Formats: sequence, structure tokens, C-alpha cells
Amino acid sequence: MTSPSDVRRIPAERLRTFTCQALQASGFSNDEARIGADVIVEADVRGVDTHGVTRLAGYVNMTRLGYIKPRARWQVVNDGPTTALIDGDGGLGQYLGHLAMERAIAKARGLGLGAVAVRNGTHNGMNAYYPLMAVRAGLIGFAFTQGPAIVPPFGGKTPAVATNPLSIGAPAERHEHVLVDMATTVVAGGKIRLAAKKGQPIPPTWALDGEGRPTTDPEAALKGFFQWAGGYKGYALAVMVEVLSSVLAGGLFARQVPPMRVFGQQPLIESFLVMALDISRFMPLDEFRQRVDALVDDLTSCERAAGVERILVPGQPEREMRAERLANGVPVSAAVCAELEQLARDLKLPSPLG
Amino acid sequence: MTSPSDVRRIPAERLRTFTCQALQASGFSNDEARIGADVIVEADVRGVDTHGVTRLAGYVNMTRLGYIKPRARWQVVNDGPTTALIDGDGGLGQYLGHLAMERAIAKARGLGLGAVAVRNGTHNGMNAYYPLMAVRAGLIGFAFTQGPAIVPPFGGKTPAVATNPLSIGAPAERHEHVLVDMATTVVAGGKIRLAAKKGQPIPPTWALDGEGRPTTDPEAALKGFFQWAGGYKGYALAVMVEVLSSVLAGGLFARQVPPMRVFGQQPLIESFLVMALDISRFMPLDEFRQRVDALVDDLTSCERAAGVERILVPGQPEREMRAERLANGVPVSAAVCAELEQLARDLKLPSPLG
Repeated sequence: MTSPSDVRRIPAERLRTFTCQALQASGFSNDEARIGADVIVEADVRGVDTHGVTRLAGYVNMTRLGYIKPRARWQVVNDGPTTALIDGDGGLGQYLGHLAMERAIAKARGLGLGAVAVRNGTHNGMNAYYPLMAVRAGLIGFAFTQGPAIVPPFGGKTPAVATNPLSIGAPAERHEHVLVDMATTVVAGGKIRLAAKKGQPIPPTWALDGEGRPTTDPEAALKGFFQWAGGYKGYALAVMVEVLSSVLAGGLFARQVPPMRVFGQQPLIESFLVMALDISRFMPLDEFRQRVDALVDDLTSCERAAGVERILVPGQPEREMRAERLANGVPVSAAVCAELEQLARDLKLPSPLG
Repeated sequence: MTSPSDVRRIPAERLRTFTCQALQASGFSNDEARIGADVIVEADVRGVDTHGVTRLAGYVNMTRLGYIKPRARWQVVNDGPTTALIDGDGGLGQYLGHLAMERAIAKARGLGLGAVAVRNGTHNGMNAYYPLMAVRAGLIGFAFTQGPAIVPPFGGKTPAVATNPLSIGAPAERHEHVLVDMATTVVAGGKIRLAAKKGQPIPPTWALDGEGRPTTDPEAALKGFFQWAGGYKGYALAVMVEVLSSVLAGGLFARQVPPMRVFGQQPLIESFLVMALDISRFMPLDEFRQRVDALVDDLTSCERAAGVERILVPGQPEREMRAERLANGVPVSAAVCAELEQLARDLKLPSPLG
């Protein structure tokens, strides 16, 4: 485990500049690199470290191997008054996600709702980024994303779908926003790898062994599968996310998607759907923001169960983390610092560590 | 527990006719009664018995007490090209849900997407009914519903929101459809009451005692609260359902909603949002249906974990139940049969038991 002394605080702006330069040096256009860097570093800033600069070397490597295509010739396959379908041509997932939500927002501003699907995308990073674009525009935003087959259906032991996250966000006033961004599995790989490193058992609800049986052994779990959040309920949500993204977008779905076990060294094909809803078609935006504030106040002021310090609302930990990290810099582990320095040498860029 | 000999099989059509007559006799218009009866009995037919004719005496009683208003003067408060907001005037929830989805479907057919919110509704019954209307129209349907404050926020012990269900459905061809309809809590009251009757412990993930601590004692659970499905993930979804329904619709939200502990004897105020998405804006509907079939085949043909008989997709148990019950009649317990006979006497109607 990382001790505080292994961690360096790096200003978000410096990470963003370096990430942008690394993507430009890999062949991406200025727009692709700028937007990609913003999505990636926003994950670090919000404390979603698994989707931040720790992935940068992987993205660069996948680009070198031809699994992410710089300056991809994405195309709008179908365009309607409130909908669009984009073929991403294997371009940068973050850029395609941003492009899709920009269009969904424009459509929602015009007619009240917008939905844009993308097929042949690549890893789009932190799913929450796209609903947050809608939130900043005063809209409610949705994102549904699928990917490589790593989790078996409920009751199965053949990996068939991804952890299929869904995200929904809505603007508030004093409280900025409320936002859910959740994988439909209980946990993803990071927490299990950490338990394995520490030699500690994991709760029986986290993972299955290779035979599809619940296990408390992190090593068995790493050879097995994630469990669905809420059992069959998480599975049911994941199936609907698959339908709303890959099936609707005409992309590869379920076991059609090439497998991905090692991030950064294999293809990572994703489809996604983003949607935006114009609040002002229902009530004045200011009134809505105040109502969300009142909901947050109502929930967080409830009596607490024994041992509970605070009652939170979804998105609050990340909002608080964001404020702290923008003020004090993003903590980057020694291992990731070393990766970034290596990347700087490889791409002949100034080190982001200053 | 009900033994098979206590159960009578009653044809769905007969239950539907009786439910319609009971609603008419309670003052509802022919349209309200016909649609209300269809939503109620469709729950029985799909095996969602908790939302079927077992609730009819409660609805009739709530109407008598003035908590559901027959021939309510609902109004379209805001109407846009893809959106609408309806004030339900305390009318029959099932009728208002049907009305809202009818309009969402019409808007989606016109421009690709539709979203209709309802405030001042009452209990809208089985949430799945509304996405299934969209599915029959060849669209993808969504429903988000809130209600009285019975579940505390994650970490709390003051009840603040309902079990806030969400439902999403999409059409298939051979497999008819896939559909999730889930409360955001692990279970609702029925299973806990059954364990209490049998004197059996419940799993520690189902419920909390009155102090907000997980409990295996069903009696303590009945004085306490439901637990969220997937812990904070179910809670996060419930908060977003609250935002999408009551907050957006301008209805009462969270602890503003009058409490409801005994169904049928207290007010039950709900807001909801339904949405529809036109698949044909993305790809030909037939192609989409075949892709959903292929997804279902891919998932259900995965290797099974030990002890698992079949791998299912969401909505499949209810589809299979529906076929069986339409063929053989709906099993109605002796207790519910007695309630229906009493209702027939009270309302001077022919008995539904024939």
C-alpha cells in the first residue's frame, strides 16, 4: 500500500498540460488531446483515481498498437431532431463521449431532449464527465456505457458483459449537483488487488471464483469474476445498459466484444449512449436548483445510525474531493509518478513533476 | 403461508371485469376504471402479486376516504415538443401513468424522444406497465416513481424517501422484450412479513432495526427499515429517482410527502416521470429486435455456476409467468378471495369468483 511519503501532490493544471502534450505527441489533434486530457485529469481531481493519469501510459500504448486511432474519421450515421448515432471509427473514447454529449445538449436546448449513441468507441474514461457537462449547461444528463466481456450473467461463469456503468446528474445551487456514477458490479479490480497485496480476505459479496462461487479469497477472486451490485438487480441494470448502448448503437455487444484482461495492451472497444433533458421545459431552472438543494438538506439532516459520522448524497464525496485537490494538488503515487516520468522521456516531453 | 388448497385459479379476464366494475362503482369514469383495472390485473398476470387485486380493497377504501379522487381534473401545466408536465389533481395513479406514457409515446414517435412528468398522482401500481406500453409501440420505455418517506438515507434512521423504483424496457422479437423493474431497496415488506409469520431469521442485508442497525430478526425489521440494494448504490439511484420524478415535476418530495405506514387507510401521494425513445431513429426496428434476441441468446447460453438451473434475463420470469397465468388463471389466495367477495357485497357487484 502507498504510504503518504510515496505520494506527491501535483497541481491539476500541470497534469492536464502534460496529458494533453502526451496525447498530441501520440498523434491526436489539438482538440482530441485537450478534451481527452480534461476528461482524464477531471477523474483525478474528483478522486476517481482509477480513471485518471494512472491510465495515461496505457492509452499511449494502445494508440501505438493501433487500438485507439488518432484523428479518427468519426461519422454521424443518423441525425434526427433529438437523436443522433455516431460511428466513432475507433477514436479516443473521451473525445467521442464529449462530442456526443455536446450534441445531446444542443438538441435538448432546442427541443427539450437529446440522445446521442456512439459505436466503435474506445474507453471513454470516467462516465460521470458527460452528465456533468449537461449539469454545467443547466440540464439533467445521463450516460450508459458498455465494454469488453469480463463479468458473467447472474448465475453464470462465462464472462459476457462489462461492469456497464450508468451515470445520472442534476444541477443544484448551493450544493452544485447530485450525481450517481456507478458500475453495476459491487467493486471493480482495484480493491480486490489491494486485498491480495495485503493478504486480507474480501467480503463474500464482492467476487466469484472461476467456477462462479462466492469467494473471500482475493487470489481466487482475481482469477474469477466481479459480483453484481444487489445481485440480480445489478445484473438486470447491466443488461439494460448493454441494450441502451451497444445494441441500440449498432456496435459489438456482449461476447462479440474482443476480450480485454490487461488494460493498455489489448483493444478496448466500447459503445455508449448519452442523454440530456432540459429542466426549463418543466419549471424555471432556478426553482429546480433550489428544490435539489432542499432535497439534499432534507436527506443530510436525517438522524444518523450509530457509528455514522455524516449522511451524504450521491456525488458529494467527489465534489468535496474536487475542492480539496484543486486547492492542494492531486496526490500521485510514486509508481504513477515513475510511469509519468518514463512517458515524458519516451515522448521527449518536460516532466509533469516539475 | 398459503397452501395450494387455499388458492383459487381465477381467469384474468374475470378479475379485470370485476376490478373495472369496482372502480366504476367507486365513482371512476369508464376510462379510468378500464385502464386502472388493466394495470392492476396485469400485475397479477405477470406474477407481481403485491401490486395486483390484493390492493383493490385498499384503492376502493382510499377513494371512499377522499385520498384518490375519481374523475380528477388533471391538467397539462407545461407542454413542449418532446416534454410535458401534468398535475394529476390526486387522481387514480394508474390512469395518470397511462396518460403520461401515451403522451410520451406520441412525442417520441413525432421527434424521437418524449418525457412526461406527473405530480399530485397517487399509487401508480406496477411501474413496469408504463415501459411495457412503449415496448408494445416498438419504443424503449423508462419509468421513475417516488412516494411516501419510508426508507432512511444510507447511514440514517429517519425515513426520508420511498423504495423509489425504476423500470426500463426494450422490445425483442422471439424473446418479446427485456425489462428491469426494481425497487432500489433489497426487498419490500412482503418477504419480511412472511419470515415473521414463519418465525425465521432474515438475511442481514435485507433490513435495519429502528436504530438503523442491520438485523436478522424479522420483528425488529418490521419496526425498522428496508436496506438499499447494493448499499450506497441503491441509495444513490433512489436519490436520482427522487430528482427525476418529484423534484422535476414540482411535486412533494422526500419528507414533505405525508407518511404512509398502512396501505389503503392513509394518503399515498406519488410523482413520476416516464420517457420513451424511438429506436427507428437509430436503426430499423426489426434489426434492433433481432439484436436484443441475440443478446438474450448470448447471455442465457453462458456456462452455469454449480447449482444454477438456468441463466435468465431481466423480465423473463414475468414473461413466463404471464403465459402460464393467461392459460391457467391467476392463483388468488383464500384471504384475497374473501376480500374480493366482501368488496362485491359492499359494492353490490357479482362476485369475481363465479
